Amino acid sequence: MSETGVEVFFDPESVAIVGASVRPNSLGRAILENMLKRFRGKIYPVNPKYKDEMGLKWYPSITAIGEPVDLAVIAVRAEIVPRVLEDAGKAGVKGAVVVSGGFAESDEKGRALQEELMKVASKYGIRIVGPNCIGVYNALSGLDTFFLPEDRMKRPHRGPIAIISQSGAFLASVMDWAAQEGIGIAKAINFGNKVDIDEVDLLRYFRRDDHIRVIIAYLEGIKPGKGRLFVEEASKTTRVKPIVLLKSGKTERGAAAAASHTAALAGSYEVFSAAMRQAKVIEAEETIDLFDMAKALSWLNYPRGRRIGVITNAGGPGVIMVDNLIRYGLEVPRFSDDLQAKLKSVFERRVATGNPVDLTGDADDEDFEKAIDIIVKSGEVDLLVIIALMQPPRLTLNLAEIIAEKAWKNRDIPFIVVTIGYKWAQEFSARLENRGIPVYDFPERAARAAYALAFCSECTRGCGSVDTC
Amino acid sequence: MSETGVEVFFDPESVAIVGASVRPNSLGRAILENMLKRFRGKIYPVNPKYKDEMGLKWYPSITAIGEPVDLAVIAVRAEIVPRVLEDAGKAGVKGAVVVSGGFAESDEKGRALQEELMKVASKYGIRIVGPNCIGVYNALSGLDTFFLPEDRMKRPHRGPIAIISQSGAFLASVMDWAAQEGIGIAKAINFGNKVDIDEVDLLRYFRRDDHIRVIIAYLEGIKPGKGRLFVEEASKTTRVKPIVLLKSGKTERGAAAAASHTAALAGSYEVFSAAMRQAKVIEAEETIDLFDMAKALSWLNYPRGRRIGVITNAGGPGVIMVDNLIRYGLEVPRFSDDLQAKLKSVFERRVATGNPVDLTGDADDEDFEKAIDIIVKSGEVDLLVIIALMQPPRLTLNLAEIIAEKAWKNRDIPFIVVTIGYKWAQEFSARLENRGIPVYDFPERAARAAYALAFCSECTRGCGSVDTC
Repeated sequence: MSETGVEVFFDPESVAIVGASVRPNSLGRAILENMLKRFRGKIYPVNPKYKDEMGLKWYPSITAIGEPVDLAVIAVRAEIVPRVLEDAGKAGVKGAVVVSGGFAESDEKGRALQEELMKVASKYGIRIVGPNCIGVYNALSGLDTFFLPEDRMKRPHRGPIAIISQSGAFLASVMDWAAQEGIGIAKAINFGNKVDIDEVDLLRYFRRDDHIRVIIAYLEGIKPGKGRLFVEEASKTTRVKPIVLLKSGKTERGAAAAASHTAALAGSYEVFSAAMRQAKVIEAEETIDLFDMAKALSWLNYPRGRRIGVITNAGGPGVIMVDNLIRYGLEVPRFSDDLQAKLKSVFERRVATGNPVDLTGDADDEDFEKAIDIIVKSGEVDLLVIIALMQPPRLTLNLAEIIAEKAWKNRDIPFIVVTIGYKWAQEFSARLENRGIPVYDFPERAARAAYALAFCSECTRGCGSVDTC
Repeated sequence: MSETGVEVFFDPESVAIVGASVRPNSLGRAILENMLKRFRGKIYPVNPKYKDEMGLKWYPSITAIGEPVDLAVIAVRAEIVPRVLEDAGKAGVKGAVVVSGGFAESDEKGRALQEELMKVASKYGIRIVGPNCIGVYNALSGLDTFFLPEDRMKRPHRGPIAIISQSGAFLASVMDWAAQEGIGIAKAINFGNKVDIDEVDLLRYFRRDDHIRVIIAYLEGIKPGKGRLFVEEASKTTRVKPIVLLKSGKTERGAAAAASHTAALAGSYEVFSAAMRQAKVIEAEETIDLFDMAKALSWLNYPRGRRIGVITNAGGPGVIMVDNLIRYGLEVPRFSDDLQAKLKSVFERRVATGNPVDLTGDADDEDFEKAIDIIVKSGEVDLLVIIALMQPPRLTLNLAEIIAEKAWKNRDIPFIVVTIGYKWAQEFSARLENRGIPVYDFPERAARAAYALAFCSECTRGCGSVDTC
């Protein structure tokens, strides 16, 4: 596997934290503490003010460390950054995450400082993430340059999703949210003003990363002059693993806001969107869709086609489900007479068998079990949506185990579950998700997940590795 | 205020429960228990099998009660329902909620039974809700014919929202969900096969009901021959209070599912939707939108126009917010030079002032306070969206009190808040919502709420009462 230049940012052996601090609530303290808690490589705190605080050996500069340093995390005033980078260059540092703000995003003086920063980096061949960013997170190596204390931003559990985000606040808040939702993230990066490492480098890197099954991207604009390259890189990537993208700055007023945020040039959204369709990137319409789709894509196999079967104990949500599956271009085929006869033969009560199979509020666990068995064996569906509302008293939480067992035995037909409600719904959902079955609280969210899975079955080989694909 | 015929279903003085039972997990037991727990009128359990079980006096029939009975809740086998209705008629019952299924929704025999039911009802002038329904819920009188135990379906707290639902399962599950979300519901009804009381009667009733500020409706189809009447009634209603509607059976396959569910004739969705636009009904695209919009509509005053101001401490979510406000036809005007100068003058740091006002991750509570004060006084916005992400460590939970106080002092400019994340976000959100400020976990949801508010400012006088409007 060839180097992409990004590796050093996610898997350095040693990291200097320049601007590390013992001052409570400071940025430099938060970064140091997060790194000490999790990072498994060597950590060198750099700050001329300290010598041995917190039981650590402190260094006045990177060159003073006297050991090889792979990565520098720089969190000092913008004015000082070029000088720190010089020092890093002399010490042979390969990459620098420049957390500091006050560059091109702020004013003329900042723009000049950013130019200077780029000159020094280029002189020493240092790759840069940032400036004006929260940087890099890798659940696998424990690297975590986010300056947000765990108390404020819970880290999600490890899982096969990577996030590329142009906005640091976006990234921090959705990571915190994902931790609550039980969505696993392996790697995440925010590159702020992206003077060097950008979305193109990151797609190239994540494409080759076997730990990553799904890439989530939040972008306000593509780096000027790199549009074509981004589309090419995206096309190559989606042959191997899905990219789920939220583009903002779609509207004129939104683009104006983006310009003042990360100095991003948004360009024409229509042109961009057409290119994304061609590159088989899945565009999310809303923030939450990114995660609804990534959850299903990272947990399930892709279906063989787009024929969706629906089993429900709730008529209304079944109808809403069908409407939304159709809206996303999926098929909800009327079941064959043969299949319908089989279904009717196992139920004493009258149930609707046409697809959706409506078991009605009288359904018990066994009814779901029977319906699942018959439909899965029929060969008439590629993906199964199960709507199981827990309000009617005949269903038990044991249905979660039944569904999970069937899902694992029939992995070629992915299962998605919908349940709406409060306590029972939450417990039912938790039991299923602990067993790797994605659950959604409304039919519309599940429909988007089904869409993403069906979409990927048609454009991605989905083996998760560029080398074996 | 004239009678609409629906009153007896929500505010009866006495209720006979026919098919009440002591058998655990039975439908008749669940209804009896729910009614005993909350209903403040007289309750007569009717079942010839029992005499004095559960410390109650039981009656073999309604006529045996010997006291006036306003409402009968009927939960017996379909075959027996016409006979029970005869008995109810003789006893002078005014309305009957027929919970039992097995009528037109099931087969030929059921269709015949439904005809018979209608004949008896018409002979005695009994109004009918159902059959094949979960019936009626009124948080104000404690009436609750839902056969779902509280353990399975938590009842939401009381609030100024009414729900009309063609699907019982939909209603039960969203009520349970609303209880979790802290969304208050006053009255709710599911009318199943709607042989009598239907969406037209209910709009008429809720329009005149001063307890109701917002009507949520889930419909699969309008009763045949009543389309024009429904549109008329909806038009009249939206002049007084908003209707937020989710229509399902929009697609051919969805309509087929609806037909087998409640024998609803879905008709052409395009025609329906055009009529709804004309009637100023707000169509929700997704289930959750119903509640996102109803929450804001029931808690806040309507704005005077559609100019939205955005204050944020997070650039990316600010951009997403703007895109979505524009998508919903709202305005995010660039602030005047004068207003921008005022904003710049109070911040030592550089902040973006064009709208959104981006206070950046460095913002503290006081920064938000200053920005809110200046913008509210400017006269340049009709509604204020505040995006306050709690991941950066300088914000405190006290910001909730600050925002709530400002919101109450400036009630003519409604405030909507967005916060994304886990623990801090949840606590911040709870503090705001306890003070009546609606909070959303993603910008897109808040944009829909803002849209609904602005929409209503243009078509509803919003005084909440047909009599004073």
